[in-house]
Amino acid sequence: MSAELRVGVVGVGAMGADHVRTLSEAVPSTRVTEVFDRDTDRAKQVAELAGGRVAESAEGLVHSADVDAVVVASPDSTHAALVLACLAAGKPVLCEKPLAVTADDALRVVEAEVAGGRRLVQVGFMRRYDPGYARLKRTLRAGLLGEPRMVHNVHRNAASGPGSTGASIVTGSMIHELDTVPWLLDDRIVGIRVTSPVADGLPDPQLAVIEMASGILATVEVFVNAAYGYDVRCEVVGTAGTASLAPAVPVSLRSAGTDGVEVSSDFVAHFADAYRVELLAWSRAALAGGAEGPSAWDGYLANVVAEAGVAALHSGERHAVSPVDRPSLYDEGVR
Amino acid sequence: MSAELRVGVVGVGAMGADHVRTLSEAVPSTRVTEVFDRDTDRAKQVAELAGGRVAESAEGLVHSADVDAVVVASPDSTHAALVLACLAAGKPVLCEKPLAVTADDALRVVEAEVAGGRRLVQVGFMRRYDPGYARLKRTLRAGLLGEPRMVHNVHRNAASGPGSTGASIVTGSMIHELDTVPWLLDDRIVGIRVTSPVADGLPDPQLAVIEMASGILATVEVFVNAAYGYDVRCEVVGTAGTASLAPAVPVSLRSAGTDGVEVSSDFVAHFADAYRVELLAWSRAALAGGAEGPSAWDGYLANVVAEAGVAALHSGERHAVSPVDRPSLYDEGVR
Amino acid sequence: MSAELRVGVVGVGAMGADHVRTLSEAVPSTRVTEVFDRDTDRAKQVAELAGGRVAESAEGLVHSADVDAVVVASPDSTHAALVLACLAAGKPVLCEKPLAVTADDALRVVEAEVAGGRRLVQVGFMRRYDPGYARLKRTLRAGLLGEPRMVHNVHRNAASGPGSTGASIVTGSMIHELDTVPWLLDDRIVGIRVTSPVADGLPDPQLAVIEMASGILATVEVFVNAAYGYDVRCEVVGTAGTASLAPAVPVSLRSAGTDGVEVSSDFVAHFADAYRVELLAWSRAALAGGAEGPSAWDGYLANVVAEAGVAALHSGERHAVSPVDRPSLYDEGVR
Amino acid sequence: MSAELRVGVVGVGAMGADHVRTLSEAVPSTRVTEVFDRDTDRAKQVAELAGGRVAESAEGLVHSADVDAVVVASPDSTHAALVLACLAAGKPVLCEKPLAVTADDALRVVEAEVAGGRRLVQVGFMRRYDPGYARLKRTLRAGLLGEPRMVHNVHRNAASGPGSTGASIVTGSMIHELDTVPWLLDDRIVGIRVTSPVADGLPDPQLAVIEMASGILATVEVFVNAAYGYDVRCEVVGTAGTASLAPAVPVSLRSAGTDGVEVSSDFVAHFADAYRVELLAWSRAALAGGAEGPSAWDGYLANVVAEAGVAALHSGERHAVSPVDRPSLYDEGVR
Repeated sequence: MSAELRVGVVGVGAMGADHVRTLSEAVPSTRVTEVFDRDTDRAKQVAELAGGRVAESAEGLVHSADVDAVVVASPDSTHAALVLACLAAGKPVLCEKPLAVTADDALRVVEAEVAGGRRLVQVGFMRRYDPGYARLKRTLRAGLLGEPRMVHNVHRNAASGPGSTGASIVTGSMIHELDTVPWLLDDRIVGIRVTSPVADGLPDPQLAVIEMASGILATVEVFVNAAYGYDVRCEVVGTAGTASLAPAVPVSLRSAGTDGVEVSSDFVAHFADAYRVELLAWSRAALAGGAEGPSAWDGYLANVVAEAGVAALHSGERHAVSPVDRPSLYDEGVR
Repeated sequence: MSAELRVGVVGVGAMGADHVRTLSEAVPSTRVTEVFDRDTDRAKQVAELAGGRVAESAEGLVHSADVDAVVVASPDSTHAALVLACLAAGKPVLCEKPLAVTADDALRVVEAEVAGGRRLVQVGFMRRYDPGYARLKRTLRAGLLGEPRMVHNVHRNAASGPGSTGASIVTGSMIHELDTVPWLLDDRIVGIRVTSPVADGLPDPQLAVIEMASGILATVEVFVNAAYGYDVRCEVVGTAGTASLAPAVPVSLRSAGTDGVEVSSDFVAHFADAYRVELLAWSRAALAGGAEGPSAWDGYLANVVAEAGVAALHSGERHAVSPVDRPSLYDEGVR
Repeated sequence: MSAELRVGVVGVGAMGADHVRTLSEAVPSTRVTEVFDRDTDRAKQVAELAGGRVAESAEGLVHSADVDAVVVASPDSTHAALVLACLAAGKPVLCEKPLAVTADDALRVVEAEVAGGRRLVQVGFMRRYDPGYARLKRTLRAGLLGEPRMVHNVHRNAASGPGSTGASIVTGSMIHELDTVPWLLDDRIVGIRVTSPVADGLPDPQLAVIEMASGILATVEVFVNAAYGYDVRCEVVGTAGTASLAPAVPVSLRSAGTDGVEVSSDFVAHFADAYRVELLAWSRAALAGGAEGPSAWDGYLANVVAEAGVAALHSGERHAVSPVDRPSLYDEGVR
Repeated sequence: MSAELRVGVVGVGAMGADHVRTLSEAVPSTRVTEVFDRDTDRAKQVAELAGGRVAESAEGLVHSADVDAVVVASPDSTHAALVLACLAAGKPVLCEKPLAVTADDALRVVEAEVAGGRRLVQVGFMRRYDPGYARLKRTLRAGLLGEPRMVHNVHRNAASGPGSTGASIVTGSMIHELDTVPWLLDDRIVGIRVTSPVADGLPDPQLAVIEMASGILATVEVFVNAAYGYDVRCEVVGTAGTASLAPAVPVSLRSAGTDGVEVSSDFVAHFADAYRVELLAWSRAALAGGAEGPSAWDGYLANVVAEAGVAALHSGERHAVSPVDRPSLYDEGVR
């Protein structure tokens, strides 16, 4: 327990800065020693809070002698290259989702990690660490639901950012469910359909119907302009019962003709516990020189399914999901 | 208010007997004067409770001088013929769903009613009278949800009866949603897909994805062996918010490690209020010599969609829904 | 079932008019034949809706040959005299709570009814007919909660009417709980304390602590200016579990940063089911020439406890509750 | 941020061992260097997990050169003396509640701390750090509830341990509410009544009615044999609305005729977040050489109110709460 993990963080926008704060405040045995961001002022500000220094480049940070492990929270298009650099440097890395912009790029990361012979990459699918999702999975595994048959997912944001497209809703938002559902079920996705009630303009909301290898069906509603707030729901339907994520707000309010709970508009606040537990698990595995949790393989699979989802949205047809064979490095998982 | 509606009831199994009780106990200005059932003992027992007498045949009851209006709650295969008899007799009739076993038979009823020039038929889609569904619709119409984009439906029974088939789940259970969703949205169904995670044996649960003329998408999970109880859920998702049916149980219990509400195993109890309001509305329209609420046309449409749904379940493909043109008799509705 | 109960209604303000509507629309075998109100225009309007006529006086209505049974919904100060008149006429009467303004006046009604030798009076403690309260009691009786030990009650109105006083909050609002708690527990109240956090001005909210003969303790918060809406809660705490009234709203809404249910501002709407079931039960007993449910004795007890409560509020002390001995006419109840 | 707090833990029963684990796993900048417990085997086991060593005595631990700050989680009767030793050693200390067994002993701690001129003591009223309670307080302070008028508290355990008495229920369980309510309201307790429905045997449940200096009333039900599980509820009632703790379970289950959430039987699990945040806040203040949060003064006040509560339980009367004047050291708080 006496060892200390010196962490470098690439990209300190909202997500990266939150990771720095969480590492400093809630993850023992870690210290943020270097920070890089293209916005140098921002990098300085965050580095100061953490007691670290500003790196001159992302590559410099990755190879720095003061950095034992790396968190990648920079723009999506830079993920794959940075993770490859970490692998080259033999350093554990937590990469925000998505692992890459294309399945091909993600596959290159997988191949590089396999060539190295040990896991170093964890992908930031933080929902696996959320107390609600974790309990859903335990509930299912404990047999309380019997055999699972369906999963219903809802994923809503108050409003989309600029530049949203039908494809980006799949690759940026739905990708969470594309990882969570297989993980929940210990199963893999073999087919996907994606449709939207909106024909002209941004196809939002979207409805995905996902087929698992076992036959289990999952529905996913993604609605990035749901107006009322940020909301994530999941119900697993089994032959003996169903389990659902409950609103995680600890206080209910009776006021002005309403009895209810507040809905956050902020996914960082919504999943604060998940991020903390994720970073804690990552730091432990990194101190031991490896990685755990969602792997580069999981990141690749999510990219493969997302590409099929985008194609399905555009074609109106079901698309099959055809990943390459899984390398044995990733055999510990059930999938 | 001084007039009295003398009601004959054909078929007094669980549903019909419950209607007799509701009419006697909660619907002013009605009196059950005649009862028919192939099980004569049962008919006697129910007639006695209501203070009516046993008819010798269903046809005799329909044409009896002591019967002003008829409730049809006999086996599905008898519905269309009995409703045609009521139309021939010029008597208002409440027919349990489905109106007919095939869309063609339902169309014959529609044509007969159109030929008579006035509405006499109400189909027993009681959910339209359920306080929850009625409030959902008011909430949507009041604009509180903005523009509707999706509807998610869940319809579960604890266990299926003997003889259930993939087709009967559509025509016997899902048919409720096939009526409710268009009614909620004032829209019509143009396409349907139905799939099941269960490939061998009874295809249960089933997942339907329904497309409305406006583009709105609806999901329907029907699960007739959900084990934990009878459960009906519906969420309407709009651009300004969503509204959901809430569990209607008036007491919550903290006991033995659980904090929650009981789930009924009994759909008659679950929808008791809906049946009462339905019979009340029907009796008023019948006293005035007509019918209101779900029409023969709605019954026909539900049969058409259900046939497409069954075909979709068997083919694995999307099936279009192609009813005949709507006769002007049914123009008052928005559809 | 062929008999018809001709009902006269004295007082058609909000409550009385609602009773007339409920009788007409939802209670078979009753007909509102006469209506009286000091506001003649209002009386006319309501009578017309019901198909009845306007009586010239309350007394005339009570003794009218066209009236079999009477509903008293006039101002509180007139209740006892009108009920005595009904007893003199031998007619079943449903009297809105309170039965009288003082315990002494209520006792006179009890004595008159006892002198007549049969129950004719039902007091309008409609909560006993509310589906939630009725289920609470069934749950307790079924042994699901073990032995009851405490009851927590909350009774809130959005805003008080003009002329509210500390005493009127007890006699007009808290009186519901003063009847409901003994009924729920099959127990009687032996002591009461009432305090308020507000020393100057209207003492609102009030907190009553009630001791039952068995030792069970009940808390009652009454808050007639709770601002957010009309709300009634009750939790029975037993040695094996607790049961609570759940919000009875059938639809939940996610909108504008909130996930919850609407709170009604209207107690008539909140208890609509209770009023309907109450009138149904009353009409049946009245058709049989008697009364059931909350009796004149219950009305008297509530008055006795309310007087002790008012005294307790003013003195700051515990007040004992000392009714006269129960006449054997009221023995059928457990208390 | 580079400094490290070396923590000694006295007493590693369930609570103390949980603190050691939380410090090691979730509180950066702390290291558990020494552990003492009268059960030496247990001490060894816990020390090993934390990478610390076993101290030979509690006093030795307090004065060890390897210990910067102390956590006291030993039996209640040892608390005051250990805290006094920490004060003598000038070391920050987190003492589990209660601070002392009697108000007099607690006062001696207060006097010693005042003599030292700076705060070193934090009392383990961890609810102040619970996300639910913290949000309740923020909600109240933000004015969303208007002016507070009442607070309703429920505090239930599945079963009491051996040796429970009427007094120990007040001093061991209710003491949490005796701290939480004043903290929530920024107010102080001036009077208390405590009664129980159970006259013979263990007086459980208990009902306390608490008067604040402002007049606000609080009810507290404590039930240490509530059978169904561990449960803590709190509702703050204001002139504009009310706010309540919501069940904090992240998953709801529909199974075997029930729709609800599991109730934990374990208060450590229930308040895991609160303990983590408490230790985090304590470690920061201790690193800075001081203390924050619930003070020795708060611990003393809770002891004074608890003594009044025990007297009230035994006498059946209201007891006034009369602490000494507050030393200026504790002025930063609002009370």
